[in-house]
Amino acid sequence: MPGRNHLFIPGPTNIPERVRRAMNVPLEDHRRADYPQSVLPLFADLKRIFGTRDGHVFIFPSSGTGGWEAALTNTLSPGDQVLHARYGQFSHLWAEMCRRLGLEVHLIECEWGTGVPLEQYRAVLAADREHRIKAVLVTHNETATGVTSDIAEVRRILDDLGHPALLYVDGVSSIGCIEFDMDRWGVDLAVAGSQKGFMLPTGLGIVGASRKALDACRTAKMRRAYFDFDDMLRMNEGGWFPYTPAMTLIHGLRESVNMLFEEGLPNVYARHFRFGEAVRRAVSAWGLNVCARDPKWYSNTVTAVLVPEGTDSVKVVAHAYRRYNLSLGGGLSQVAGKVFRIGHLGDLDEIMVLSALAGTEMTLRDCGVMVTPGSGVAAAQEYLRETAPEA
Amino acid sequence: MPGRNHLFIPGPTNIPERVRRAMNVPLEDHRRADYPQSVLPLFADLKRIFGTRDGHVFIFPSSGTGGWEAALTNTLSPGDQVLHARYGQFSHLWAEMCRRLGLEVHLIECEWGTGVPLEQYRAVLAADREHRIKAVLVTHNETATGVTSDIAEVRRILDDLGHPALLYVDGVSSIGCIEFDMDRWGVDLAVAGSQKGFMLPTGLGIVGASRKALDACRTAKMRRAYFDFDDMLRMNEGGWFPYTPAMTLIHGLRESVNMLFEEGLPNVYARHFRFGEAVRRAVSAWGLNVCARDPKWYSNTVTAVLVPEGTDSVKVVAHAYRRYNLSLGGGLSQVAGKVFRIGHLGDLDEIMVLSALAGTEMTLRDCGVMVTPGSGVAAAQEYLRETAPEA
Amino acid sequence: MPGRNHLFIPGPTNIPERVRRAMNVPLEDHRRADYPQSVLPLFADLKRIFGTRDGHVFIFPSSGTGGWEAALTNTLSPGDQVLHARYGQFSHLWAEMCRRLGLEVHLIECEWGTGVPLEQYRAVLAADREHRIKAVLVTHNETATGVTSDIAEVRRILDDLGHPALLYVDGVSSIGCIEFDMDRWGVDLAVAGSQKGFMLPTGLGIVGASRKALDACRTAKMRRAYFDFDDMLRMNEGGWFPYTPAMTLIHGLRESVNMLFEEGLPNVYARHFRFGEAVRRAVSAWGLNVCARDPKWYSNTVTAVLVPEGTDSVKVVAHAYRRYNLSLGGGLSQVAGKVFRIGHLGDLDEIMVLSALAGTEMTLRDCGVMVTPGSGVAAAQEYLRETAPEA
Amino acid sequence: MPGRNHLFIPGPTNIPERVRRAMNVPLEDHRRADYPQSVLPLFADLKRIFGTRDGHVFIFPSSGTGGWEAALTNTLSPGDQVLHARYGQFSHLWAEMCRRLGLEVHLIECEWGTGVPLEQYRAVLAADREHRIKAVLVTHNETATGVTSDIAEVRRILDDLGHPALLYVDGVSSIGCIEFDMDRWGVDLAVAGSQKGFMLPTGLGIVGASRKALDACRTAKMRRAYFDFDDMLRMNEGGWFPYTPAMTLIHGLRESVNMLFEEGLPNVYARHFRFGEAVRRAVSAWGLNVCARDPKWYSNTVTAVLVPEGTDSVKVVAHAYRRYNLSLGGGLSQVAGKVFRIGHLGDLDEIMVLSALAGTEMTLRDCGVMVTPGSGVAAAQEYLRETAPEA
Repeated sequence: MPGRNHLFIPGPTNIPERVRRAMNVPLEDHRRADYPQSVLPLFADLKRIFGTRDGHVFIFPSSGTGGWEAALTNTLSPGDQVLHARYGQFSHLWAEMCRRLGLEVHLIECEWGTGVPLEQYRAVLAADREHRIKAVLVTHNETATGVTSDIAEVRRILDDLGHPALLYVDGVSSIGCIEFDMDRWGVDLAVAGSQKGFMLPTGLGIVGASRKALDACRTAKMRRAYFDFDDMLRMNEGGWFPYTPAMTLIHGLRESVNMLFEEGLPNVYARHFRFGEAVRRAVSAWGLNVCARDPKWYSNTVTAVLVPEGTDSVKVVAHAYRRYNLSLGGGLSQVAGKVFRIGHLGDLDEIMVLSALAGTEMTLRDCGVMVTPGSGVAAAQEYLRETAPEA
Repeated sequence: MPGRNHLFIPGPTNIPERVRRAMNVPLEDHRRADYPQSVLPLFADLKRIFGTRDGHVFIFPSSGTGGWEAALTNTLSPGDQVLHARYGQFSHLWAEMCRRLGLEVHLIECEWGTGVPLEQYRAVLAADREHRIKAVLVTHNETATGVTSDIAEVRRILDDLGHPALLYVDGVSSIGCIEFDMDRWGVDLAVAGSQKGFMLPTGLGIVGASRKALDACRTAKMRRAYFDFDDMLRMNEGGWFPYTPAMTLIHGLRESVNMLFEEGLPNVYARHFRFGEAVRRAVSAWGLNVCARDPKWYSNTVTAVLVPEGTDSVKVVAHAYRRYNLSLGGGLSQVAGKVFRIGHLGDLDEIMVLSALAGTEMTLRDCGVMVTPGSGVAAAQEYLRETAPEA
Repeated sequence: MPGRNHLFIPGPTNIPERVRRAMNVPLEDHRRADYPQSVLPLFADLKRIFGTRDGHVFIFPSSGTGGWEAALTNTLSPGDQVLHARYGQFSHLWAEMCRRLGLEVHLIECEWGTGVPLEQYRAVLAADREHRIKAVLVTHNETATGVTSDIAEVRRILDDLGHPALLYVDGVSSIGCIEFDMDRWGVDLAVAGSQKGFMLPTGLGIVGASRKALDACRTAKMRRAYFDFDDMLRMNEGGWFPYTPAMTLIHGLRESVNMLFEEGLPNVYARHFRFGEAVRRAVSAWGLNVCARDPKWYSNTVTAVLVPEGTDSVKVVAHAYRRYNLSLGGGLSQVAGKVFRIGHLGDLDEIMVLSALAGTEMTLRDCGVMVTPGSGVAAAQEYLRETAPEA
Repeated sequence: MPGRNHLFIPGPTNIPERVRRAMNVPLEDHRRADYPQSVLPLFADLKRIFGTRDGHVFIFPSSGTGGWEAALTNTLSPGDQVLHARYGQFSHLWAEMCRRLGLEVHLIECEWGTGVPLEQYRAVLAADREHRIKAVLVTHNETATGVTSDIAEVRRILDDLGHPALLYVDGVSSIGCIEFDMDRWGVDLAVAGSQKGFMLPTGLGIVGASRKALDACRTAKMRRAYFDFDDMLRMNEGGWFPYTPAMTLIHGLRESVNMLFEEGLPNVYARHFRFGEAVRRAVSAWGLNVCARDPKWYSNTVTAVLVPEGTDSVKVVAHAYRRYNLSLGGGLSQVAGKVFRIGHLGDLDEIMVLSALAGTEMTLRDCGVMVTPGSGVAAAQEYLRETAPEA
């Protein structure tokens, strides 16, 4: 089949040439004398990306799901109470993991398309006078619905109430794309994966831990070995790992971090905002709605588009892939059949965004959703032209 | 800079992943015992692509320009008369090469935007009762203007007149994209390069020679060594080369030929027609004209678009590259400043074609050519949807 | 620095060109409709390599250490009794993991350089009339000392005694190199990693589970989420994964499995035997001893060489790397300073083995161990010539 | 087949990882605005490697054979007299090319194994009072026999005699490996190829031309087009090429030149000397002789080893490849069956050299040449250890 796969799912994202080249290396000795020289600066740079001065960023050979587990098991004890809200498939799965690991979850059910329910969080935490809730979890960017939540506000609630719970944030589809600042927001555990903003293959769970979180390890009694922070931290301090690290991916991470810094994190975030907004303008030009219920929830990394009544989004996604080699995200669980998702994160430029829209327009029309040809592309073009960064 | 270069010049073209992988190999011994086993089938397959049963296809480490030289010097003698027509920069350059190599060129000047002047060819050849013209040259696809000429008609003229001149065709930007059939059209020398329809880096001059052309080598007195057919043919017969071949590119060629066969040559040609037509519909929707003067000249590999009076196409091309990382072709020589070119050949799919159009639309508007946003994309989309091949 | 790193540690091993090429791909949608078509046959093929008909082989994004954890947590309950023997750093670490995960370990201390203590295992198991021991662990190939243990004999003991404990085998540095047969040996849990016999970068924990092991999951009460067999198995059955898999590595695994089958597993094992023996002959020619106490323990994937009294093997390894870009394994823990290790597993040929020996000879002499120049190479050469497989 | 091809022919040579990575790029527009920024410094750097301040170094998409042709056709006129000496297959072929191109060759026949016959050159040139000889050719490193000639002495003869002929040097297998200094030696035309000291795939003919050579172009009347210096120089001055350049290889060239500079040219030359000498010591330890008749002729890039009477070197080379995946060079023409060649140029380190020797020893013994096992390796090891560069 000529041409290429057009990858616009919300992760894995498009891998930059530079990263591919950086990873295309022979294998190496992970105990070679000069290995720490390449690893130590990487840890420092990851801290800048997560926005923490005193914490540490762990690199596990795992997926982001492993990162969730690492964050929980290193800092909590069996039976600990956890506050979380479910407003999409990924917040659901993290809650489910908590339960399996033996934590007691206060789960607030929210409409899918909304984000963290601040008032309910405040109410639950205010009622928790004895501070039995040890962990407050937030899915920063709910990948299933294209909803971004306000982490700073959650921190404000905790601070207002003087509540000592640790703050856990799933930043898998936000870190490296949307502004993220562990220290300013008082995030204690921040979880990322390699295959989103870091523009790498799946295979690294990247977990930021605040000083307070690292202190919590000492008393946390959940069983852990593979994901143990202590072993990892002790070895990381010298530039080593307690078991064979995924060196090839780490080479790629070095390069993707270089790329983020070369562009400049504020520019990276601004670019994601522009591309997110361009996609939203296209959706609006098509006469369709996004899943996110309110502009404050709009995600700059993924847009879930509601298909009209009578259209099955499963067929839209299948047709896009089969007919145009265009990979869109499907609807998951509650929104299965109702939404398709356009991922607009990672290594993207303006023309790539337009190509996703052009392919989606053809797909929609093929599937009977008679959007005006070129309408989404035109809306996005004009927005992108108006907001072009200074050369 | 995030994203990628969007390459829509008429060559080099987009290199497929498979071809890149095939070329990413350690170096090898070109005299290893089993090398012929991989080379001999390739020669046979190239003959299928050029459409010759009894001829041979040569692979020189050179560019297509080297292929032009090989075709001429192996089959002609100093002072031989050559008929050629100039209707673009590449037909101009081939004529210029003939002169430098000591051939006497009957050069018919044509308006740029037209193709081979059949009636004039007929007149000149008819007048050549003594058959002093030894070579009839045609630029099949004039890359500078987006014009394709009818080779079969040139052959018909030669046959009608019983004229024995050899027929030389520059197929650099047509072979592997547009139908080409050496035997049916009676082409004696057909020149291709690696970086167009073969989807490879520059570095191979690929030259088809008919049996009649091979016979002509015996009496041709032009000096030649590097590009000598005889040495090459003698070695090729056993699966070898007279000097170190560009083995890495030949690995890539093996894979690109595989890809052409897997898609099927008729499908490859049909795809190029569809994409050429999609681009032309977009140009029309923009209210602009193409350089080709008549639909019969339309090229399916490259479209030269005339910019409106007062617009400098040099600036259009420069802006597209600098602002959108979109590589378009510029106007050359006579049409410098007047046209920009969209290459639509090689490893392309529908969404890639639309992405070129989307980027061009933004570029044109940025440069003051106020085409309707999305109009070209829409026209192309609808055409592509209507003409979708059966699944 | 010209030349290349000569990688002869017992993993990561040399990655074949084919595997590198297979992994050098753009990223993909892990939910694309046709993904199961490529995954399902891989699961079947992995079963052949592990030697199980009715079991399943899991692929986790993790290292081999993660594989250890997966094997334990899916099949055991907190406080369960485990029998294990410590005769090197890796058997030590697995025992340590058991303890951390809340298992009760009967740990038999053995001299480093020996393997599984069959008589002691028999005694302990015979004494365990109430079958409180739920898990019998064996490190098949102790990478730290170059010792291979006899798994079939452990199974015989269990069978003789009618003991129902599950049999867990660490095959990280044996599977894909040394004969391994889950079904014949009655292995219930077999752990491999990607960076040894599978010739891949680190990043996959590959775990074989017998039908009995899969049944044990139902009653096993250890907490697990990321490494949960149930989720994985349910999704794997359709060709999917419960969370984003390490697709890039899985592409590589597909290719390395192809390579193992093309060579033929018996030939792979025979090759590892020959190379192991060649290295041992070299060590003997040098007048040095290996760490393994008895020929029955000799490992065909790694040889730990004892340095003479007064020589620090840390310096030997450091010198080899710095001076010759030769990566040898160091001594770990109890044997630190006393041994260096030559890894001879994975993608190796005869000349590569000789190159390791040649570099080691120079290193030893530079470090004051005055082996006869060329003596090890000569011994290995003659052995390899005598045992050359039929062409 | 496990392991790798062990490539020890005198070109193509081993391609460094860095160069492979540099070449593994998407294709590009050769007319993009910023292309000269990357090309212009490369021209300057090539001049350093060739050792010319005022000359120019041309990069043609061709092999080294094309470079020979470029050197001749740009600077000579039909019928010009050329002095050359034949002492191997490559000096033979260059002489043959001269004849085909219509030059009149004074060819001095020398014993194969010797180099440029200085006294005979002096005699012929002294007798040429009318300076009818326009070109003096020397094959610097005769790749067929492993013989290096003294270019400075040829220049001295020309200067002594005040002879104005241009000095042409085939440096295909010497430049970038053995000291080469156009300006100091008064070389006018120096020919290199990409696949030897530049450690690249075949595909570039790289030709240094002195100012005097560039001036000679004005009056040189040989026909030329593809290889024309004038077109090339005019475009190169702005950072462009007259036709599509082999950009992918040029990316690789950029990286290989970086590597040569990082190591330092004097260190590169010293390394080649050491490795050449190590191989010669091995040959001597085997009790065999090299083809070069006198130490002054010894080549540091390739050693031709004479096999004993009764042994057919064709079989040696075939066996090495088939049995050990070791690629050695065969004997060509006059020395066919009598020598095999070990290439020791390009991206090599000590262990790689030893691996070639180890494989050759096994091969020789398999073929009935009963060298002492390990003897060549040992001799080379000890020499390499004694001459180790300071850390």
